[in-house]
Amino acid sequence: MRCYRLEKAGSLDGLVQGEAPKPAPRAGEVLVRVRATVLNFRDRMLVLGQHPLPARSGVAPLSDASGEIEAVGDGVTRFAVGDRVISSFFPTWFGGPPSPTPERYGSDVDGWLLEYRVVAADALVHAPRSMTFEEAATLPVAGLTAWSALAGVGPSDTVLVQGTGGVSLFALQLARILGACVLATTSRAANIGRLKELGAEAVVDYVANPDWPVVVRELTAGRGPDRIVDVGGPGTLAKSINAVAHGGQVAIVGALAHTPAPFDFWSMFTRQATLRCISIGSRADLEALVRVVDAHSLHPVIDRIFPFDDAKAAFTHYFEGAPVGKVVIRH
Amino acid sequence: MRCYRLEKAGSLDGLVQGEAPKPAPRAGEVLVRVRATVLNFRDRMLVLGQHPLPARSGVAPLSDASGEIEAVGDGVTRFAVGDRVISSFFPTWFGGPPSPTPERYGSDVDGWLLEYRVVAADALVHAPRSMTFEEAATLPVAGLTAWSALAGVGPSDTVLVQGTGGVSLFALQLARILGACVLATTSRAANIGRLKELGAEAVVDYVANPDWPVVVRELTAGRGPDRIVDVGGPGTLAKSINAVAHGGQVAIVGALAHTPAPFDFWSMFTRQATLRCISIGSRADLEALVRVVDAHSLHPVIDRIFPFDDAKAAFTHYFEGAPVGKVVIRH
Amino acid sequence: MRCYRLEKAGSLDGLVQGEAPKPAPRAGEVLVRVRATVLNFRDRMLVLGQHPLPARSGVAPLSDASGEIEAVGDGVTRFAVGDRVISSFFPTWFGGPPSPTPERYGSDVDGWLLEYRVVAADALVHAPRSMTFEEAATLPVAGLTAWSALAGVGPSDTVLVQGTGGVSLFALQLARILGACVLATTSRAANIGRLKELGAEAVVDYVANPDWPVVVRELTAGRGPDRIVDVGGPGTLAKSINAVAHGGQVAIVGALAHTPAPFDFWSMFTRQATLRCISIGSRADLEALVRVVDAHSLHPVIDRIFPFDDAKAAFTHYFEGAPVGKVVIRH
Amino acid sequence: MRCYRLEKAGSLDGLVQGEAPKPAPRAGEVLVRVRATVLNFRDRMLVLGQHPLPARSGVAPLSDASGEIEAVGDGVTRFAVGDRVISSFFPTWFGGPPSPTPERYGSDVDGWLLEYRVVAADALVHAPRSMTFEEAATLPVAGLTAWSALAGVGPSDTVLVQGTGGVSLFALQLARILGACVLATTSRAANIGRLKELGAEAVVDYVANPDWPVVVRELTAGRGPDRIVDVGGPGTLAKSINAVAHGGQVAIVGALAHTPAPFDFWSMFTRQATLRCISIGSRADLEALVRVVDAHSLHPVIDRIFPFDDAKAAFTHYFEGAPVGKVVIRH
Repeated sequence: MRCYRLEKAGSLDGLVQGEAPKPAPRAGEVLVRVRATVLNFRDRMLVLGQHPLPARSGVAPLSDASGEIEAVGDGVTRFAVGDRVISSFFPTWFGGPPSPTPERYGSDVDGWLLEYRVVAADALVHAPRSMTFEEAATLPVAGLTAWSALAGVGPSDTVLVQGTGGVSLFALQLARILGACVLATTSRAANIGRLKELGAEAVVDYVANPDWPVVVRELTAGRGPDRIVDVGGPGTLAKSINAVAHGGQVAIVGALAHTPAPFDFWSMFTRQATLRCISIGSRADLEALVRVVDAHSLHPVIDRIFPFDDAKAAFTHYFEGAPVGKVVIRH
Repeated sequence: MRCYRLEKAGSLDGLVQGEAPKPAPRAGEVLVRVRATVLNFRDRMLVLGQHPLPARSGVAPLSDASGEIEAVGDGVTRFAVGDRVISSFFPTWFGGPPSPTPERYGSDVDGWLLEYRVVAADALVHAPRSMTFEEAATLPVAGLTAWSALAGVGPSDTVLVQGTGGVSLFALQLARILGACVLATTSRAANIGRLKELGAEAVVDYVANPDWPVVVRELTAGRGPDRIVDVGGPGTLAKSINAVAHGGQVAIVGALAHTPAPFDFWSMFTRQATLRCISIGSRADLEALVRVVDAHSLHPVIDRIFPFDDAKAAFTHYFEGAPVGKVVIRH
Repeated sequence: MRCYRLEKAGSLDGLVQGEAPKPAPRAGEVLVRVRATVLNFRDRMLVLGQHPLPARSGVAPLSDASGEIEAVGDGVTRFAVGDRVISSFFPTWFGGPPSPTPERYGSDVDGWLLEYRVVAADALVHAPRSMTFEEAATLPVAGLTAWSALAGVGPSDTVLVQGTGGVSLFALQLARILGACVLATTSRAANIGRLKELGAEAVVDYVANPDWPVVVRELTAGRGPDRIVDVGGPGTLAKSINAVAHGGQVAIVGALAHTPAPFDFWSMFTRQATLRCISIGSRADLEALVRVVDAHSLHPVIDRIFPFDDAKAAFTHYFEGAPVGKVVIRH
Repeated sequence: MRCYRLEKAGSLDGLVQGEAPKPAPRAGEVLVRVRATVLNFRDRMLVLGQHPLPARSGVAPLSDASGEIEAVGDGVTRFAVGDRVISSFFPTWFGGPPSPTPERYGSDVDGWLLEYRVVAADALVHAPRSMTFEEAATLPVAGLTAWSALAGVGPSDTVLVQGTGGVSLFALQLARILGACVLATTSRAANIGRLKELGAEAVVDYVANPDWPVVVRELTAGRGPDRIVDVGGPGTLAKSINAVAHGGQVAIVGALAHTPAPFDFWSMFTRQATLRCISIGSRADLEALVRVVDAHSLHPVIDRIFPFDDAKAAFTHYFEGAPVGKVVIRH
């Protein structure tokens, strides 16, 4: 079978296509014919050698995948041949509280950028019936992160999302399904229409309005959003705290903006804010998301789909193309 | 001012219109110019002398009301003259766990079927901006009961509502706002269209299908609804338990069907069901509902509006007219 | 290896000791040297042929077990040789909402009354460090059922437990750890001292006081217990409902008392009670219980321990000996 | 009656004793014979003119109080003459989500450092039966802040408290009641014994161990505390984040240590921490705390009690005496 391996982190040159024997499932395992994989920010950091927990040399990259069960090992009852499945980011976090995980796709063990992969049946989840393979593969990281960031949001809340990355667009769509009102920020006027089409009530250009918390507060009758899905981390947190409603929550899902802005303790304290760092979610959380996706026929925003043999072009586009929504590889 | 008083429970003859002096607010109180009142099942039982906790002779009936603040007593900061308000069923249950209440409108103390009422400012809630007085007066009992019955419902749940009473229609509309799929039962084919218009995915005629739990199970891929808002009590509970999903909940909000059906313990136990009896809700719950109503411009189903001087005709219509939605009196 | 098999349900005669080859673990599996098993009410019903879902002929009985990992299959990282483990009642319910399970120990697949058992590594949980094998084997059913029944109980609540069975005694001990005040009922004056020793504030003899809800209400300043752990089901539910506090909950964990008492709908409705049927719990719940057990060095009440070769005597004692606490078999 | 007024913030010289007419309750109000008041950090900031929201000139200071109902206004049913009561910090936050409050004791309106005070009946709570007036007066701020900071803590959690201030000691005692294991830090070796006596499992001297997060991690088998009740704010937050368990929470209740330490975003993010800023709590929360206090006969740590006429000495002792526990004024 064809596969990709990250031989040497640092640049895309370290990612090479090759061949490997098609594996066979043992007891409790299944053989997945991989149908689609999806790129996430962590994959970028791993390939470019910027991740604090670097990849082992020679592992296949990518943690987001969908596929079809082609064979099942002894004793597997969870899936049958032909079932459509998706990966779960944490292969052994099934439910309950999170704990640090020893084996992560694309760094400690092989990820999914290959034609076939054998994996424990328990590490997979049924794909939603309402999604194509390309769509379903966007759920394990971006979809579930957004879902977890919205925990507790309800139909009288206002949610703020930042930019047009995968998590932010999922958060926009899922917040609408939860009945919330959504505001969005963007740095590109060109994206405003798309964000409104997806259900944003209002969109703020944060370049034209560097003091966007003031604008956002005006849009919410002085109150501020009840939930902010913060993707910037060090670079956006201070403004998110200044924008959030009294008693509201900033859900921190990423750290795209590394230049740290000074942190305003008093603003956080006097508005009784909560900061909550999101760790994607468990298999039970992913199963809950799949039910929601099917119940609402949710379709994610896909920027572009690349064929398997052009996987490196997919990475280049993800790194440099300022995609709106997810970048997918069709296997 | 004009007012109605229940001189003698037993029949509508005991309800008489009269005159009373216009009251004045003391410290902490407000004078409300009542604009609309709404009938509920409890009012029917009180007037007909069927309520286990009968009304004191001479009290004004009805607990659901909206109005305008006409004067405020010393020290009142919560409202200003001209504010639009609604009553809260429990005048002193502001939040926290429920407890038995000493003073109930229309039985222990005067209700709202009069032109002016003085009440503690803390007993009222701001009316939603998006509703007329007639609409807003439907919230304190029917709206809030439905809202409480749906606590915990989310966008992958299926909710079953029963019939076309006020609580059931509110539950239908609110469940849709929460992202849930809604099934409805009815005994009248004529109501099917209306229920679908309001957002029901499917409607089951429970007279034509006395074994409606089987039909409902088929409509949910064998699973059953995750939440059933049961309005029949003794008469419907057994079937609700047979219909509900494994791990689901039957929220009991009323007892319209008094003929007790045998209770199937084993069905409840093996499907790990929860039965939860709903007690309308607190002032904090009502304020949460008002925020949802405004955020979604929800408009309740009103069957008919009667003028104040025809209040007895409103009761007659409520008793005998098989209304779809709420019966309102405009003051 | 030695093992027991239920050849024919109906009486203890159908349970026979025999020999079987020692199994070997495949990928993802472990070999457990079983050290202790424990009897539960379900086992009694299965052996006596009274369970609605009867056992397949020839399966080994019992679902509660502790043991030691003697060998691990390929790819197992969750456990190492020598680890002390306990079974989980639902081998594939790891977390999230419950769902009906296809494979149950002692009826659909082999239980644990044998010397060695191979099982998926994911089906086990680390035993608490603070318990012996005999103690640890009481957790999967009785301990976890009690723990789940107490969900939400806090340090101002009063909890009522019924009798001296395994679940009730665990509920007593765990409720004390949660800071609750505990009342107990019993039919035997001889047990009163023991129940108080374990932390019960007061004990009511329900034979001497057939109207025990009145006594319990007096013991709680008229309020009633906030949580009742009901083990009788059809036979006790009506009284539990009459005893529970306004807004309280009856957690139904069993059906020991089959003669149905008439169910008082109005009592349940007016006191706004919740009935919740308990389904033991997931692996994540069991792991939470183990942490609590270790944090508090909880030791369960064990009535008697039988050697493996006297397993049938253990059943006889469980059936007829009115044990106080759990009956254990040491392997 | 005798009273104190803060004529001019800046130093204790601005606090002067005087006389005022004894007030009388109007409708909905009660007259409280104040029996005890208690000092909190906010009172210190107000008197010293350091609070961002300064006191109006001439108000009576202090927000924590207990007393006896001496007279009730028209329509008051919540209390009777002779009832023992405590104040609630937010006089109109009864339950539900917090919102900014217009009227605060000791800055916007009179506080409680006087002999009699008239207040809305709804602004008070029944004092616990098990506490003296001096003890009960410590609950509204320090007790309730600790209680709110522990929301969600259970019997397998480890809680870290910092120092020997009122909130920290309450958090220690309440965490023990919730079944948690407690670690404490202190800067004074002399306090170690007292902290252990109150139930701390271990105490870390944070002056001798400036890198106390490392020590705390060792004490918890490498895991870190599940909950940290942080009283230092800007000055301790960074270390609290470094100490807290994966998935744990830092509850921020104060800002005693103003010198900001650099905030470590990556530490917070990789350990998936939550920071939650605590706003004391609502009346419903205070009522819940009172039930816990009575159920467990909790007695707070009181450093010293001053007579009413020595109130200024109480302030001096609070400012300079490094009290362990609360400083109380007996009226």
